[in-house]
Amino acid sequence: MVERRMNPLVKWALILFVLVSIILNVVLICIQSGRAPKCSAQRVHPLRGKHNERSGVFADLTREEYLQVQRYMVSQKDLDISTKQNTKPSENFLFLIDLSLPKKADALAYLDMSAAKPVREATVVVFFGSRGHIKEYTVGPLPNPTYYKARAEHPINARTVTVGEYTQIFQFLKVEVFSKLGKLLKESFHVGLGKDLNPFEQMPRGVRSGDRTTWISFFRDAAGMYIQPVGIEVQLNHESVNSSDWRVERLLYNGQYFQTAEELREKYDAGSVEKIVYKESPDYGSLKPKTKPLQVGPQQFYVEGKRYSVSNNHVLYMDWSFAFGLSSLTGMRVFDVRHKDERIAYELSVQEAMSVYGSLTPGMMMTKFLDSSIGIGRFAHELVRGVDCPYEATYIDTYRYIDVAAPVRFKNSICVFEHNMGQPLRRHFSDFFHNSYGGMVNSALVFRTITAIGNYDYMWDFIFYQSGSVEAKVHATGYISSSYLVKGNRRYGHQVAENVLGNIHTHFINFKVDLDVLGVKNVFQTKDMQYVNVSLPWMPDHYAMVPELVENQLKTEQEAALRYGTKTPRYLHIASNQTNRWGQQRSYRLQVISFTGDHLPESQPEERSMSWARYKVAITKHKDSEQTSSSLYSQNNIWTPAVDFSKYIEDNESIEDEDLVAWVTTGFLHIPHSEDIPNTVTVGNGGGVLLRPHNYFDEDPSIHSPDSVHIAPGTEDSCVNNRMACMAKDTCSPVLEPFTYHGFEGVMRFDD
Amino acid sequence: MVERRMNPLVKWALILFVLVSIILNVVLICIQSGRAPKCSAQRVHPLRGKHNERSGVFADLTREEYLQVQRYMVSQKDLDISTKQNTKPSENFLFLIDLSLPKKADALAYLDMSAAKPVREATVVVFFGSRGHIKEYTVGPLPNPTYYKARAEHPINARTVTVGEYTQIFQFLKVEVFSKLGKLLKESFHVGLGKDLNPFEQMPRGVRSGDRTTWISFFRDAAGMYIQPVGIEVQLNHESVNSSDWRVERLLYNGQYFQTAEELREKYDAGSVEKIVYKESPDYGSLKPKTKPLQVGPQQFYVEGKRYSVSNNHVLYMDWSFAFGLSSLTGMRVFDVRHKDERIAYELSVQEAMSVYGSLTPGMMMTKFLDSSIGIGRFAHELVRGVDCPYEATYIDTYRYIDVAAPVRFKNSICVFEHNMGQPLRRHFSDFFHNSYGGMVNSALVFRTITAIGNYDYMWDFIFYQSGSVEAKVHATGYISSSYLVKGNRRYGHQVAENVLGNIHTHFINFKVDLDVLGVKNVFQTKDMQYVNVSLPWMPDHYAMVPELVENQLKTEQEAALRYGTKTPRYLHIASNQTNRWGQQRSYRLQVISFTGDHLPESQPEERSMSWARYKVAITKHKDSEQTSSSLYSQNNIWTPAVDFSKYIEDNESIEDEDLVAWVTTGFLHIPHSEDIPNTVTVGNGGGVLLRPHNYFDEDPSIHSPDSVHIAPGTEDSCVNNRMACMAKDTCSPVLEPFTYHGFEGVMRFDD
Repeated sequence: MVERRMNPLVKWALILFVLVSIILNVVLICIQSGRAPKCSAQRVHPLRGKHNERSGVFADLTREEYLQVQRYMVSQKDLDISTKQNTKPSENFLFLIDLSLPKKADALAYLDMSAAKPVREATVVVFFGSRGHIKEYTVGPLPNPTYYKARAEHPINARTVTVGEYTQIFQFLKVEVFSKLGKLLKESFHVGLGKDLNPFEQMPRGVRSGDRTTWISFFRDAAGMYIQPVGIEVQLNHESVNSSDWRVERLLYNGQYFQTAEELREKYDAGSVEKIVYKESPDYGSLKPKTKPLQVGPQQFYVEGKRYSVSNNHVLYMDWSFAFGLSSLTGMRVFDVRHKDERIAYELSVQEAMSVYGSLTPGMMMTKFLDSSIGIGRFAHELVRGVDCPYEATYIDTYRYIDVAAPVRFKNSICVFEHNMGQPLRRHFSDFFHNSYGGMVNSALVFRTITAIGNYDYMWDFIFYQSGSVEAKVHATGYISSSYLVKGNRRYGHQVAENVLGNIHTHFINFKVDLDVLGVKNVFQTKDMQYVNVSLPWMPDHYAMVPELVENQLKTEQEAALRYGTKTPRYLHIASNQTNRWGQQRSYRLQVISFTGDHLPESQPEERSMSWARYKVAITKHKDSEQTSSSLYSQNNIWTPAVDFSKYIEDNESIEDEDLVAWVTTGFLHIPHSEDIPNTVTVGNGGGVLLRPHNYFDEDPSIHSPDSVHIAPGTEDSCVNNRMACMAKDTCSPVLEPFTYHGFEGVMRFDD
Repeated sequence: MVERRMNPLVKWALILFVLVSIILNVVLICIQSGRAPKCSAQRVHPLRGKHNERSGVFADLTREEYLQVQRYMVSQKDLDISTKQNTKPSENFLFLIDLSLPKKADALAYLDMSAAKPVREATVVVFFGSRGHIKEYTVGPLPNPTYYKARAEHPINARTVTVGEYTQIFQFLKVEVFSKLGKLLKESFHVGLGKDLNPFEQMPRGVRSGDRTTWISFFRDAAGMYIQPVGIEVQLNHESVNSSDWRVERLLYNGQYFQTAEELREKYDAGSVEKIVYKESPDYGSLKPKTKPLQVGPQQFYVEGKRYSVSNNHVLYMDWSFAFGLSSLTGMRVFDVRHKDERIAYELSVQEAMSVYGSLTPGMMMTKFLDSSIGIGRFAHELVRGVDCPYEATYIDTYRYIDVAAPVRFKNSICVFEHNMGQPLRRHFSDFFHNSYGGMVNSALVFRTITAIGNYDYMWDFIFYQSGSVEAKVHATGYISSSYLVKGNRRYGHQVAENVLGNIHTHFINFKVDLDVLGVKNVFQTKDMQYVNVSLPWMPDHYAMVPELVENQLKTEQEAALRYGTKTPRYLHIASNQTNRWGQQRSYRLQVISFTGDHLPESQPEERSMSWARYKVAITKHKDSEQTSSSLYSQNNIWTPAVDFSKYIEDNESIEDEDLVAWVTTGFLHIPHSEDIPNTVTVGNGGGVLLRPHNYFDEDPSIHSPDSVHIAPGTEDSCVNNRMACMAKDTCSPVLEPFTYHGFEGVMRFDD
């Protein structure tokens, strides 16, 4: 071999490199040992079911479909429809495009018997200001509409106030009220001195059919304006579609009534009015964090990838599958809910959110909000990762067309996630004779949207449990509605801020629960207990009160309309006549969780628009014509409702061996208190209905869950029946997508 | 410089090493980039409060203290006490040693005014079989007892059946029953052919005071024996403390009654009995997973360490602090619950779990379980990581002395954890005028134990929310009680397995809620709504029904005993006369979540032992002598109870400006169904009470939480007010302790 000399520089460089390498290796190995691999971003275990393309029959309209329908309607020259967002009430406005649900029989034939796909149609609502009515159309077939069929007509004043009308209202108030009250507004509210007031109107708009006379309350132009009323309210008559006919009916200032802005100004200037003197008020409506440093609390992560799957509008999770949609009006809904491919529910949907308020001040005195008339689903804005839903949830975009010029995408407005509920779904520790432990953590799938309808944010959850239960839940958060604290108003609530009354109100929520237990032919059963005095068989002279099972099958819609405030059986079931392995009728039980206040007395003319709230549960025979318990027109024509739910029951049809729908009402009485400032919390402020299998399965289906854990003496360390025993070895770090938020992109804009 | 030659071998080795190093570096760096660091095992943010050593006043006895008390009692020769676990009923047995709670006034003086620490004392219960009575003693001072004071005396048959008595019962059954029925047992149940039967007794033991005549049902010797009754029951008279006096009263075989084992045998042999013919039955009681592969669902981890701290028996979490203990009899309890160091509750504790069953078979026909007589806390076994509580929870050992020869440690029998509830605690999306988003995830502290009392496992949770609410919750899981399906029994439940009836029963749970709202002088208020017909101020000829707030202050214990089945006001408050910033009385509201069935009619002689269950909520004036709503003697002397809760109310004391205790009853009616096999699930099977601040704080305390998130247009990507926006960058992998389980170490052993 030839010896060669080495350049000493190269040599030393080499040695240096070797040393650095060794150090780097040691360092990296050290760090390495303190790090865990990323958790699998992919699903580790295969899905149990298959996605069902036929679920598309329930899918919301796509952006393209909205545009197709819009173009088609606009092309009908005789209809003379405008799609501009600022279309005036006197013009004809294409207010709404939404999916027109297929007839149930058609959908079932398609889903179950490979019948033809039902024709895809849209519902279109046009406010014909120029003609004095509202028309609802069915437009189809999609994607290329060739027909529109008028379905119903309503008086024009039954319409929702549009952005176009709001723009005119704000303009009217500016010119006809504010411009006349400059001094008062300046002295009382610092308006014009860098301050402004924002309107918030109360509903209904009057006291009888045809009225459109709205009390508008004013609030500080600050975060959380809903809890910052300033003591001035204006009653605006906007019955005419022509804003030139509008007029101020009355004004309320600091508890005193005036017929005109001029009267108020004159009396104010003359000193004959008890004045509100402006006072700087703290920023109590803000939701900005008041404490730093910011922290990160416990987070959830998916160790083996997501165990559910979302494809188009279809979700798979363990043995569950369902289709979903989000109606601009009624909000979240799921269809064709199946367990092991056996349909349990055809539809489970939000119907209405209603509130009745009490106050001495004119707006809130009569306030009865019926949110589906404004649009519940309409306000499903982007959900914030890690707050509204767990960070790792799946977020789904929705598209809507309501009171807009073009379809709007709402990014991440639905979330789906599996959640570890932090408790066992079931467990038993065997203490006697046989020692063993068996259990399973409660991991369930949550399907959620949150709708910020003005002041309140309702959180809507459908939860799918591995025990075969499905839960529909609602919680309220966001801001309470409030009124300026005038003398005598304290009997309508509690003071919650300087001069602010949090007004007493009810929350009533209606869900449609269209269970199909082994097909559509079902019965409605009730079960309860009663004590019966019986003689003991082994000492017949001794008697004891022993609880017995009491079962009933209710025969008609009226029998099965279970009113709030009456004693109702504790167990309510939609049952099949088919039996389980033990000869018991297979059923799903409805367990209602509710804290409602009193429903508006039926003597009130507004009651019929909310007559569903009379009943905790009402069972009706399914009809495609009885699709919803409320309607778009309930709020603004509250006295002559387009849908009066009680009519569904009036015909008292048989509910034996029929396709049954349960209409479930839940909610809570809300007496506001200081802790509602700045926001009402979800804890304790909710309700819902749990749909539970009852003799439906032959055993608890969760016994087949791969999450089951079993420990016997001697197997304490074994992973064979207990993956938890390997958790510490198999840790991984969560795979998180970057945080994004686009929630402000799709918000309403007023040109005021 | 001098050039030197290099050994070529060294040179090539160096080059090789360099190459390997480079490759290793590259590989490590690559792996590195796919890995995250371990999350901090240490708390990243400082605790808000300080641990309070004075909480020791509520601490359970330590192992040493139990031993000190035991030694002291045994050293009292005149008492002649045995501590052997198999002490016979005819001997004197040291059954129980437990903490004797200090008087409330003494404890408060110590906690608040630096008074002397109350003397630490133990409660000791001795079953004096040789003397025919039970005695309860107060023993102190700990750690070196010098006195024992007799506190109460009860008839000997009021005692719980001990391991010693069970041993004799099992022996008696073997000799006096089973040995005589060899053929029947073999033919009907394969007993002796590798099979065995296990007893499970029903309570109460008779129909009048002094009775100790127990119906014992027999079950297959298999996992989940409680759902595997075989159709034979034996009524044993064990009134005498001497087992030689015991006798079989009756037997039930396949629905037929017999006076003696001999009669049954003769008739069986003569063929005049309808026989049960053995049939192999599937293993439906087993909790072994039926599906593989095993999976790991979503898990929770602490990103910045645990944000709570447990020191001895004191817990700190955000603004909360509390002391805790676990009574062998009544179970889980917390004391001195404070928010920002202001006491809200003095005590919050489980009192009793009661069930009333219906059946045609003799045992379950009369069954009324009162679990605190057997011991609720007694059965708090080890909690399984990842199933009973989240994997990363903190697990706490407890020590107990009940029906044992020496104190027993129950490892990990309490868990504490912060849980991400998967929903916002509050949130609002501002759509109009001001666009912004503010919200906060609901992370709360859960304090839990699970007690497996025979067939049922009750999960007990106290939950501390950042909104200032505390929740006491109970869920039932484990096995239902069942009976052999004889003719006529179907009206008492549903068939759930071959020849097995799941018997209808109630679950009633009582909690003691000793709120102290700004001191001990409180009042009990109710709030509700009512509709009042009022004239509209702006159109006085128009009337409308408007909801008003109705407030009442109840004056006496009897007024404030709110019975189930009556209309009770919707809001119940323990209030101070002190007001918040807005002049509203500061209060905590009790919101009861309950699905109870009917309470046993008061006509029944057993009812007085469970008279607390008459009331949804009952308010009493605090007395140290009214420590519990039930007692150790309620089950076995059910007809002459040591504690009849209704007596607490009978004296009808004033509850205005007094120290008030709320006794809250919750529970649910359970009509068993096939899905209760193998275990009842927690979902839907629970109840509880939520304690909510109501005008207590001036605003929602969660606004000061460091978990708050705020997003304004333009700050969507900023982490300044939203740590979620940095989550993806800051991920880390959970730090998990190894899995261990020792639950089988502390279980009961019978020498049978």
